[in-house]
Amino acid sequence: MKFDTETPLYIALKNMNYEELEELAKEIRNYIFTVVYNNNGHLASNLGVVELTIALYRVFDPFEDIVIWDTSHQSYVHKLLTGRWKDFKNIRKKDGISGYTNIHESQADRFGAGHAGTSIAAALGYAIADKIKGVNRNIVSIIGDGALGCGMALESLNQLSYQGAKIKIILNDNNMAISKNVGSLSTLLNNFRVKKEYTEVKKVIKDTLEEHHQVGKDFENLLRRVRDSLKYSLYNSPAAFFEDMGIKYYGPVDGHNIKKLEEFLSFVKDYKENSVLLHVVTKKGKGFEETEAYPTKFHGVSKSNAEKLSYSKVVGYTLAHLKNYQFVVFTGAMAEGTGLDILQNVDNNKVIDMGITEASIVTTAAAVSLGGKILPIVDVYSTFMQRAFDSLIHDVALQEIPVLFLLDRAGLVGEDGPTHHGVFDISYTRLIPNVEIWTPLDAQDLANMVYTSIIKGINKPRFIRFPRDGEKVDIKEILDKLQIVDNEWKYLKKQKESNVYVLAVGTLSKNVYEALKTYDVNIIGVRSVKPLDIRIIKELKERAETILVYEEGSLKGGFNEEIFKIRNKNVYSYGIDDEFIPHASRKEQLEYCGLSIEKIRKNYEKIFNNNKVR
Amino acid sequence: MKFDTETPLYIALKNMNYEELEELAKEIRNYIFTVVYNNNGHLASNLGVVELTIALYRVFDPFEDIVIWDTSHQSYVHKLLTGRWKDFKNIRKKDGISGYTNIHESQADRFGAGHAGTSIAAALGYAIADKIKGVNRNIVSIIGDGALGCGMALESLNQLSYQGAKIKIILNDNNMAISKNVGSLSTLLNNFRVKKEYTEVKKVIKDTLEEHHQVGKDFENLLRRVRDSLKYSLYNSPAAFFEDMGIKYYGPVDGHNIKKLEEFLSFVKDYKENSVLLHVVTKKGKGFEETEAYPTKFHGVSKSNAEKLSYSKVVGYTLAHLKNYQFVVFTGAMAEGTGLDILQNVDNNKVIDMGITEASIVTTAAAVSLGGKILPIVDVYSTFMQRAFDSLIHDVALQEIPVLFLLDRAGLVGEDGPTHHGVFDISYTRLIPNVEIWTPLDAQDLANMVYTSIIKGINKPRFIRFPRDGEKVDIKEILDKLQIVDNEWKYLKKQKESNVYVLAVGTLSKNVYEALKTYDVNIIGVRSVKPLDIRIIKELKERAETILVYEEGSLKGGFNEEIFKIRNKNVYSYGIDDEFIPHASRKEQLEYCGLSIEKIRKNYEKIFNNNKVR
Repeated sequence: MKFDTETPLYIALKNMNYEELEELAKEIRNYIFTVVYNNNGHLASNLGVVELTIALYRVFDPFEDIVIWDTSHQSYVHKLLTGRWKDFKNIRKKDGISGYTNIHESQADRFGAGHAGTSIAAALGYAIADKIKGVNRNIVSIIGDGALGCGMALESLNQLSYQGAKIKIILNDNNMAISKNVGSLSTLLNNFRVKKEYTEVKKVIKDTLEEHHQVGKDFENLLRRVRDSLKYSLYNSPAAFFEDMGIKYYGPVDGHNIKKLEEFLSFVKDYKENSVLLHVVTKKGKGFEETEAYPTKFHGVSKSNAEKLSYSKVVGYTLAHLKNYQFVVFTGAMAEGTGLDILQNVDNNKVIDMGITEASIVTTAAAVSLGGKILPIVDVYSTFMQRAFDSLIHDVALQEIPVLFLLDRAGLVGEDGPTHHGVFDISYTRLIPNVEIWTPLDAQDLANMVYTSIIKGINKPRFIRFPRDGEKVDIKEILDKLQIVDNEWKYLKKQKESNVYVLAVGTLSKNVYEALKTYDVNIIGVRSVKPLDIRIIKELKERAETILVYEEGSLKGGFNEEIFKIRNKNVYSYGIDDEFIPHASRKEQLEYCGLSIEKIRKNYEKIFNNNKVR
Repeated sequence: MKFDTETPLYIALKNMNYEELEELAKEIRNYIFTVVYNNNGHLASNLGVVELTIALYRVFDPFEDIVIWDTSHQSYVHKLLTGRWKDFKNIRKKDGISGYTNIHESQADRFGAGHAGTSIAAALGYAIADKIKGVNRNIVSIIGDGALGCGMALESLNQLSYQGAKIKIILNDNNMAISKNVGSLSTLLNNFRVKKEYTEVKKVIKDTLEEHHQVGKDFENLLRRVRDSLKYSLYNSPAAFFEDMGIKYYGPVDGHNIKKLEEFLSFVKDYKENSVLLHVVTKKGKGFEETEAYPTKFHGVSKSNAEKLSYSKVVGYTLAHLKNYQFVVFTGAMAEGTGLDILQNVDNNKVIDMGITEASIVTTAAAVSLGGKILPIVDVYSTFMQRAFDSLIHDVALQEIPVLFLLDRAGLVGEDGPTHHGVFDISYTRLIPNVEIWTPLDAQDLANMVYTSIIKGINKPRFIRFPRDGEKVDIKEILDKLQIVDNEWKYLKKQKESNVYVLAVGTLSKNVYEALKTYDVNIIGVRSVKPLDIRIIKELKERAETILVYEEGSLKGGFNEEIFKIRNKNVYSYGIDDEFIPHASRKEQLEYCGLSIEKIRKNYEKIFNNNKVR
């Protein structure tokens, strides 16, 4: 590295010439590529904003102004420029810096994120505070075209002018969301092009303007407006969309041309009348041949564990296998992450990508069920389903509409950390009347539960939850063995003489079984958190002296609380405590929460004073 | 009534002439007014859509087509026309019809609602199902201008064209949301007017078009487009906003002119190319002098219990009293419902109305806190806070940002029924790390807790929850007695010899105390669900033989589950079971859930075999 990385680079930037800046951009790309290659993380989105971030900090000050990175998966360059060059190599690792912005990590991180579409609401909040305090700072939100289609982004956008907020929005338009982009707004952004006709008509307008030069100010303004409106109309420009919301529109500008970017960012900085949006066109993965060609693949780079088949893929293959049944699957711009690309490959019509609009997705799915004999399936990460909480209650459960929910990444997610953990879903679904929560014990069980739900249909909303994990399995075997299953709990080990009962929810039962199989205990795999297995509950009431409960989810409101209702003397529960678990590897997180094989054994022995057999 | 109300009126409509239709409109208004006067409910919104609903069912068929009423507080006319004329007089009463659409009540109710902004997502779902099944029905969403600004409505709108859905949106623009309307979109709708200049410039354009008559199709089309774009621009029309989303725009049309409405609705019905929006301008409360003048007052008409001061107003007066402190209060178009109009009257700047955008409100409030030394307060009904669940977790709690949440209507809400109950909040907030949940015991305690939070500040997110109820109190006395309080639980009755402990959360403790004060028990008012009162928990562990727990909230995930963790032998919990409680009076609902004074006493006696003193 030829640049001084001791002083935060955002300061050094200001004295560099464009050649040096280009050099820096190259250096940054190399560094990001190397680190992400080793630590996993978001590659393409960060490579796409190298020039944008450099230009941004030539014009704005990351410590004086308020710069908010939406979703913040693209904030690596920002971190490198604001004093975290050296720390960057430990990004996403335990005790290293976060893969997202974090207000506790740096003063330059003005708002933490991980879920999309929050930055405009946050910028509005800063604007309100500044107005009250009489402070005058530039408030900038950098938001992708995918995130802009989120309900929160749109509703906040619609508030800016009314609230008198004057924020600066940088629309990072890479035409990508995470999978392909969806929604009319993105079509509008992408259709943006100079039409041949514009050149033709421009002359007519210009002539008219000149002819009417003498007709007075009012008419002149009118004609200018005519010209502008023509420009928008003929360009097919998104300007009208934003300007209708009282937001001045600039752009589009090439997001990889630092000089041009600076020019436009300066306009934006100087524009004081109202909120303003700068439309920047970037290329996700810019700078690496391979990433430029296959940006989704590199959205989150993850060194694949070639031996394990992820649960997401198990779902994808199972759905593809069942493609001739009457169902549709909704995704929120996450077809690849959820394994639905496998289904798309065999029948693209079965997957409906509604972009990052989880609340709408759930409600739309409910209506699909009412509209006809079609099973709607919603396949969403547990953490993102939090956004549809009210739709689950108000639109699905209250109306008792059968929708199948596949809660992917339900549990600890590793390096993405606390914004992405799916640890609350047992608690936030268990409280909803009329629903079922199924928790498969392994890949085959997961496939069977999906199979059963599709073949037999469901008569109330059903959640099937599974973690970010996988198994060494042959998918063909799994598909061959598909069978109708119920949701009864399963004895993984039955020890008639023992009055120690170990209950483990879902796939966590694998760790629990490994840890405790040699002990004199009953081990039960909990395959349904709601309803409970009445037969086994009865047995617990009658026979259990000690109960151990394990779940990969929040203990507050979790499954364990159902067991405490049955008895609480000698009941021990293990899961995620009442705190947010920092980023680290999934293994480290399981360890930390006492859910690794070793920790399960250790804690067990602590309880029983090291007596292997009681 | 001179009309045949045996046959559903929507059929009879088609044979009436306009004079008869006007007569019918009058009849409907009278009937609605009389019934709402007796049963409470939404008056103004329903009076506003009388002609619209009549015209709608002259053009569309409520049983053949899919008609979805957004929020559905304006569906009374729809109910009257679709076979519920006689049942209407028992609307909102126990065992009577619901005040909202309900798919289990009538085939004409295609989607239930109560919360705003879901109808476009639902319409999209029906469209998807119809497409799959090859069915061709008209799918109509009727949505107000306030609801259109909801995140869900906007994000679904943005999906329609991309998903190939062809739905018909009737925008019922009454410029009202519930309090005044907010957001740029509504400004845009309201600014709609013919500009004088348009007339002037029209001629220029017309001439140009004529001049270029011979220049070929392409150029002609171009110029037509120019004309259209001019029209939009000059009219200040919202057309561009919708057409940018691929939605054809018609209107505006007078929402009280049945003939005109029919004409436009027919255009809309015949338009098959894409989704289409008809902009209808209505007057909330139309037809009654008084309601036309004071529409908010009549949004929900409720015979006031003049003697009781609602908890909402207690909050409003307390905040008004503290107006010189550094705080702002956010409302989601509910300033009057939450008593914030009292604060607005003394300092309008302290109340920020962001419209029906709860998820954004919570995130914006978080940023206000980061932006400066201002306490952000979010005053939202418990049921609507469900929409901000992810913002609570992801933006507030994870970042440990001090925001004060006032959860109004936390508990059973009476006639509005299951869409509006605030019974889940204890469960859905208790699972969130880093938060406090305070539950005041009475009006004075509520005022004190608000006072304390403002005067002393808070260092983590704090919820203060209170039900839709009130007390016979003198607000001046309450304000005089304001004092700093903690969140310790309070002995309402201490009986040293007794090992029976009765725990009652929040204001429910008043009923519990009334019911059990003569018995030999300890009665504890629970003033904080999170954290728990360690001192009393310790006492329970040491001394309690029997514990009774009462809470006005869902038992699943509720406070009671914290107690079961301590002990579960002889623990009895009372609250809302795992079901949705139908509409009825709040009194009847409390009775049903075993939370009325009488039921509390009865259940107590059942446990103790009628021994008054043990």
